[in-house]
Amino acid sequence: MSEFFPDVPKIVYGGPDSKNPLEFKHYNPDELVGGKPMKDHLRFSVAYWHTFTNPLSDPFGAGTALRPWDDGTPTVENAVRRVRAAFEFLEKLGTPFYCFHDRDVAPEGKTLKETNANLDAVAKVLKEEQQRTGVRLLWGTANLFSNPRYVHGASTSPNFDAFAFAGAQVKKMMEVTKELGGLGYTFWGGREGYSTLWNTDLKRELDHLGRFLNMAVDYKKAIGFDGQFYIEPKPMEPTKHQYDSDTESCLNFLRTYDLLGHFKLNLETNHATLAGHEMQHELRMAAAAGVLGSMDANTGDPMLGWDTDQFPTNIYLTATCMLEVLDMGGWTTGGINFDAKVRRESFEPVDLFHAHIGGMDAFARGLKIAHRIREDGRLAQFVRDRYASWDGELGRKVESGRATFADLEAYILPKGDVTPNVSGRQEMLENLINEFI
Amino acid sequence: MSEFFPDVPKIVYGGPDSKNPLEFKHYNPDELVGGKPMKDHLRFSVAYWHTFTNPLSDPFGAGTALRPWDDGTPTVENAVRRVRAAFEFLEKLGTPFYCFHDRDVAPEGKTLKETNANLDAVAKVLKEEQQRTGVRLLWGTANLFSNPRYVHGASTSPNFDAFAFAGAQVKKMMEVTKELGGLGYTFWGGREGYSTLWNTDLKRELDHLGRFLNMAVDYKKAIGFDGQFYIEPKPMEPTKHQYDSDTESCLNFLRTYDLLGHFKLNLETNHATLAGHEMQHELRMAAAAGVLGSMDANTGDPMLGWDTDQFPTNIYLTATCMLEVLDMGGWTTGGINFDAKVRRESFEPVDLFHAHIGGMDAFARGLKIAHRIREDGRLAQFVRDRYASWDGELGRKVESGRATFADLEAYILPKGDVTPNVSGRQEMLENLINEFI
Amino acid sequence: MSEFFPDVPKIVYGGPDSKNPLEFKHYNPDELVGGKPMKDHLRFSVAYWHTFTNPLSDPFGAGTALRPWDDGTPTVENAVRRVRAAFEFLEKLGTPFYCFHDRDVAPEGKTLKETNANLDAVAKVLKEEQQRTGVRLLWGTANLFSNPRYVHGASTSPNFDAFAFAGAQVKKMMEVTKELGGLGYTFWGGREGYSTLWNTDLKRELDHLGRFLNMAVDYKKAIGFDGQFYIEPKPMEPTKHQYDSDTESCLNFLRTYDLLGHFKLNLETNHATLAGHEMQHELRMAAAAGVLGSMDANTGDPMLGWDTDQFPTNIYLTATCMLEVLDMGGWTTGGINFDAKVRRESFEPVDLFHAHIGGMDAFARGLKIAHRIREDGRLAQFVRDRYASWDGELGRKVESGRATFADLEAYILPKGDVTPNVSGRQEMLENLINEFI
Amino acid sequence: MSEFFPDVPKIVYGGPDSKNPLEFKHYNPDELVGGKPMKDHLRFSVAYWHTFTNPLSDPFGAGTALRPWDDGTPTVENAVRRVRAAFEFLEKLGTPFYCFHDRDVAPEGKTLKETNANLDAVAKVLKEEQQRTGVRLLWGTANLFSNPRYVHGASTSPNFDAFAFAGAQVKKMMEVTKELGGLGYTFWGGREGYSTLWNTDLKRELDHLGRFLNMAVDYKKAIGFDGQFYIEPKPMEPTKHQYDSDTESCLNFLRTYDLLGHFKLNLETNHATLAGHEMQHELRMAAAAGVLGSMDANTGDPMLGWDTDQFPTNIYLTATCMLEVLDMGGWTTGGINFDAKVRRESFEPVDLFHAHIGGMDAFARGLKIAHRIREDGRLAQFVRDRYASWDGELGRKVESGRATFADLEAYILPKGDVTPNVSGRQEMLENLINEFI
Repeated sequence: MSEFFPDVPKIVYGGPDSKNPLEFKHYNPDELVGGKPMKDHLRFSVAYWHTFTNPLSDPFGAGTALRPWDDGTPTVENAVRRVRAAFEFLEKLGTPFYCFHDRDVAPEGKTLKETNANLDAVAKVLKEEQQRTGVRLLWGTANLFSNPRYVHGASTSPNFDAFAFAGAQVKKMMEVTKELGGLGYTFWGGREGYSTLWNTDLKRELDHLGRFLNMAVDYKKAIGFDGQFYIEPKPMEPTKHQYDSDTESCLNFLRTYDLLGHFKLNLETNHATLAGHEMQHELRMAAAAGVLGSMDANTGDPMLGWDTDQFPTNIYLTATCMLEVLDMGGWTTGGINFDAKVRRESFEPVDLFHAHIGGMDAFARGLKIAHRIREDGRLAQFVRDRYASWDGELGRKVESGRATFADLEAYILPKGDVTPNVSGRQEMLENLINEFI
Repeated sequence: MSEFFPDVPKIVYGGPDSKNPLEFKHYNPDELVGGKPMKDHLRFSVAYWHTFTNPLSDPFGAGTALRPWDDGTPTVENAVRRVRAAFEFLEKLGTPFYCFHDRDVAPEGKTLKETNANLDAVAKVLKEEQQRTGVRLLWGTANLFSNPRYVHGASTSPNFDAFAFAGAQVKKMMEVTKELGGLGYTFWGGREGYSTLWNTDLKRELDHLGRFLNMAVDYKKAIGFDGQFYIEPKPMEPTKHQYDSDTESCLNFLRTYDLLGHFKLNLETNHATLAGHEMQHELRMAAAAGVLGSMDANTGDPMLGWDTDQFPTNIYLTATCMLEVLDMGGWTTGGINFDAKVRRESFEPVDLFHAHIGGMDAFARGLKIAHRIREDGRLAQFVRDRYASWDGELGRKVESGRATFADLEAYILPKGDVTPNVSGRQEMLENLINEFI
Repeated sequence: MSEFFPDVPKIVYGGPDSKNPLEFKHYNPDELVGGKPMKDHLRFSVAYWHTFTNPLSDPFGAGTALRPWDDGTPTVENAVRRVRAAFEFLEKLGTPFYCFHDRDVAPEGKTLKETNANLDAVAKVLKEEQQRTGVRLLWGTANLFSNPRYVHGASTSPNFDAFAFAGAQVKKMMEVTKELGGLGYTFWGGREGYSTLWNTDLKRELDHLGRFLNMAVDYKKAIGFDGQFYIEPKPMEPTKHQYDSDTESCLNFLRTYDLLGHFKLNLETNHATLAGHEMQHELRMAAAAGVLGSMDANTGDPMLGWDTDQFPTNIYLTATCMLEVLDMGGWTTGGINFDAKVRRESFEPVDLFHAHIGGMDAFARGLKIAHRIREDGRLAQFVRDRYASWDGELGRKVESGRATFADLEAYILPKGDVTPNVSGRQEMLENLINEFI
Repeated sequence: MSEFFPDVPKIVYGGPDSKNPLEFKHYNPDELVGGKPMKDHLRFSVAYWHTFTNPLSDPFGAGTALRPWDDGTPTVENAVRRVRAAFEFLEKLGTPFYCFHDRDVAPEGKTLKETNANLDAVAKVLKEEQQRTGVRLLWGTANLFSNPRYVHGASTSPNFDAFAFAGAQVKKMMEVTKELGGLGYTFWGGREGYSTLWNTDLKRELDHLGRFLNMAVDYKKAIGFDGQFYIEPKPMEPTKHQYDSDTESCLNFLRTYDLLGHFKLNLETNHATLAGHEMQHELRMAAAAGVLGSMDANTGDPMLGWDTDQFPTNIYLTATCMLEVLDMGGWTTGGINFDAKVRRESFEPVDLFHAHIGGMDAFARGLKIAHRIREDGRLAQFVRDRYASWDGELGRKVESGRATFADLEAYILPKGDVTPNVSGRQEMLENLINEFI
């Protein structure tokens, strides 16, 4: 096997005192945390698009990425070489999963037929590499936003042909995902939204999106694909507004179109913050509704208003995320996919390793911190105690739906005012969290 | 009748050429627009809290408001005097509606019982003034956020007593609203949210909120109050996060707790923008779901991150709002309530008139502009034509839910690619809108 | 002359009632406003980069622009054809000016020498077209941000060669600008900033930027170029932080490096809002310091956190801008350059006309509104009167720098407190502005 | 001495394993870091206003703070009792400094004369307590924003009397600060800005502010006060725009009015982020200009658009801050003042201890981390190496101001293009920082 990263060895665990930037300091795949290996808690995945296809351009400058194995041609040969490089990377890094869009791995042809053939050709190599390495497909997805045919959206395009093309494309990619043993399939509606409401029939577009996803559910059954469907919310960018804005807009949409049982959410930190929410909020809200499915791990820059998709290194963030994941009982089909890209200034191949090692170490620390917070128990106990007044007779009656306003009035009117509140102790709790950082 | 605003005459329509700041330049209540009087299109309402109770303080400074009739004491006498001043204002301004919280109009007593008695005493005067002037109550609401007893929320408080007190308070205020012939009742969850998730059981709090609103629905039936219930979304402030964040989070909540048929939304411009949405978006989204009920008219400052609640004067904004209102067939129970406050620097009584006159004129212009856009027809025609490709056989099949991905593939695969897209013409449409401004 | 826009006639003034989207409704070049033709007030310019070179790609999708004259090759032939199309556009639109970066008009070669030769070849055609049409160059500029050699900045790059290359490039472009009779030269430091402070010597980079601009001043003298130098502030994007963030950071920089007399500012609306400022603020602040030089006209979307560079159509914005311009006595060397791009969805050639016509009409209306506000005089009078208390003896003494705190104390201590304030009348003034909209 | 916090002992260092929320886990005042005691590195100060005067109200609710020693009356007796409570708190907490506004410690009287007498009376007690405890005054300041007389600003008010009153007030407070041995005096222009530019003569207001500060400089000399003057930037809130927006706007202002040698900056984290800057940026920029004087330590919520003034607990933030402080050689006159308030929900007296302990521990950790990063040396070495290409002959010539564009061209033209760039290694550096967290 030719070496695409000749200067980078297999990344091993060097421990917290290692000064070697190409060793893990915290991620030790088989180390048990709460009786379960770290790798099974974390289920790391690499995003093919950012790591193997992204040229590191930005709106003000050309791509800078140095990828010696990539000759830039839209050919199957080049695509296959890219697959080989990708799997060498995945093997050396030791992530058990990867994710891709159809167009990341194979070039478009002149017709959809040609394009499908290209995809089949590369998928064959992907399968071969999966078998060789044991790396699995966390989820597949179709790119319904880059090609100019989707300029006005895919399933929400006013051009019916774009809807039809998107349907055919998703159909094909669901088949490929099944063929590759993918554990899930993700819908990110990159252009399912609007640039201006002046030219938009919002209701009709939402209905079309609802129809599209119902057809996907039907096709899933038709082919016997048993992977999990995910929707990935994002509020804006590239469009002014995307319909799958955040956890609750997705939930509302899924409820409206009778899709709730068929989808979970794939939440991304930077998308959460663009929507004005902490990732902690989005995770908690999704978990409360039973739809927290998977995570696109990255971080944004709170001073910048676009999706910077940076690698996550902040252990407050990773600890917070892992606490929500552990609280819901851990991942089932999902995992932690690094939907993150190296900076345009970090254009050398080795930067891809630095970036992923940092992200994996940060989540490994986050996992251990979250586990210790749970073992310690003080935080959970504080929250339980805080609601203790609800465990009285009338509180129980309210919670079970049998109380009325008249009951409440009869209780409080003679009392005159409420039993004094106690402090919410936010500062004390923040200090408590810091004990574990 | 004593004169609280001795220097301000009844505000009359002076026409567009008037230079008198105390005349309407555009709002002419009985002028017909599309066959309906302007006053019936707009259904203006004054917010008691901002206009009669707000001292114009801010977090860095004491109140500046000069309100000669208000001696600052929390007495019923003072409250009654305030009512007289308020109705003189309403009469002179000529708005057909007003809105209030229970605590705006009457002071709290030492116990809930005393407080209720205070409210009854003032409500009697309100009724008397309503009858004298013909001004009606657009909606009532209870203040469940100012008193320290609600420091951790009302229906979502971990202190059960706060929930109970809130229930008794809403019960009373629903009765008062009914007594005053209120056309609606609004729930704004000012502290129904969290300051930090570390101390919060989010799911339990949402369940409590769901229970609370179901009890309100039950009590509504019990007393035969036939006004419309509204939820008013706001994403943050005073708390870090409020559960009723925006239109779609409210819809998701209402669907989750089987409340959808019982509530409509009361949308506010500044709350929309704090949530990262245009008011146009929120209105359109609510109308698409059939829940656009009423509007809290104001505007925010896009450079500032808090609720500035400024009076709306931008006619792009008002035209956009009125277009959505006309497109849904106009208000039924709702109206345009100025949930807006004069600047802390605009502390003289006459500023209250300047502010409302400006807002009413801006909406009057917005109405006329929206009406002309609809009469002209080019905008609506453009949107209809844009989706024409959906009116073919396969499009219809998709829309009726009978198509499959296989159908789409069979259609597009032989075609190879999509019929070329046409421009979305955003700039042309923005120019078109400008023809009417 | 071949027709690149065969379906678009010369754009003429059709008046406010015209329904023809390809006519001006308000911009009437020779119409006098305050005794001066509109075209001389407004001095419109087209930005070559957005209108003739931008493929309308975005970070999530390929370019959509249909530009039949552009074969996409980086050749001088293609560049020349683009020049012909551009000047047909400029002629038909009737703008007296245009602006360009060196790399907009001519392709890079393998070496700087080749690149310079390409630029000379195209500049010759530009000169010819300028002479043929009478269109002039408002300002030239060098693109020091798109090529990967500038990945870490140009004059602030840690790679000295990037600094040297940038110097040679600016030298050449200053020569070309002089040759083409350019009225100014603009510096926009697109990558003069940082992606992370962790790898950055901020002070050393600022010093290098200071040296660079001083060398530009020297070279200006050396070649006798008498155009105006401009700095264009922008706070972020593409980098995390750009040193020329806003008006005041530029002023601080210019004062620090003894450059204040040599530069004015070229202010852009969307850059202002990204910095958290209204354009009105930036214009006023620059004018107060005597450095308001020119304007890049566009608008952003206040709900989006990146530079959307939309065409300006909001007449509140344009009126506000023109009021500041008239108040400072009008443009001297500068003008109104549409640094704006059609939406990615507006990809047809005719959209370029719609967009510019809308922007020009909006500024024409803004000019007339601003002129009328000034003629009316009430606004300016209000502001003057507001500061009348400063015209007393002690106020004058303070303003002339002869008073002390002891003087103030001696005045106010016996008085006890201040003469009561009067309302700032913000709402009344906003209504006043609306009289002119 | 009566005990105001009877349940709270003197806070001692318990070490990292302590589970006692009322012990320091990291702040060990006399422990040496780099040969200097932690207390001298950090120079902690408590903000009187937030900790002893703030009622914990917000714009939607009344104050919640339980402060048993405070009877809420605006009397000198109450004020003196508050001083006793404050110094018990300071002693128990062990911070060497505190800061206050004139109006925090003493109530206003009916006239300025009375107010000054009140201030003198309380200042006497402050002095006594300072002597008793050894706690010192880091800086004093005057509240020129809360009283309605400053509704339109203080030194920038259109009402000359407000300017005069402010001058007399600052004069008095400078005297009191000198009397109390204050090490500095801070100017925060809370209302030195505008609510709307429509009623504002921006240039005249800036000139007045310039005059005001020059008078302060004069008076400082006149009374022989040798403390350091600080300006504290904040971009907005309470006003729409404050003139001292950020580091660079202050620098521009100071340069414009010949004040640069007389002022340093007192930077606050939450003010930095409201201005769109990281605290790291503001500190670095101020240090580069030699004006980094002191720090108001707190943190904001990046999802919220107002000044939340939360206690800082994030050790990335504190480490970043301390690195800038150590890099500039440590504090001279300044220190770390907790301009932070407990949440409205944290209303019990003990929460004040939790909050400060958490902030002090976080900065203690930050100090140790920053020290270790400096000892390690890899970060600084990386940055130095990155600019190595500037140390050649031509680079030196440029830096010394002797090179021309012609020199640069002569160097680069034959070379054709630049020596290849190397990666900026942002991810690797972020991982490096994480080694120390």
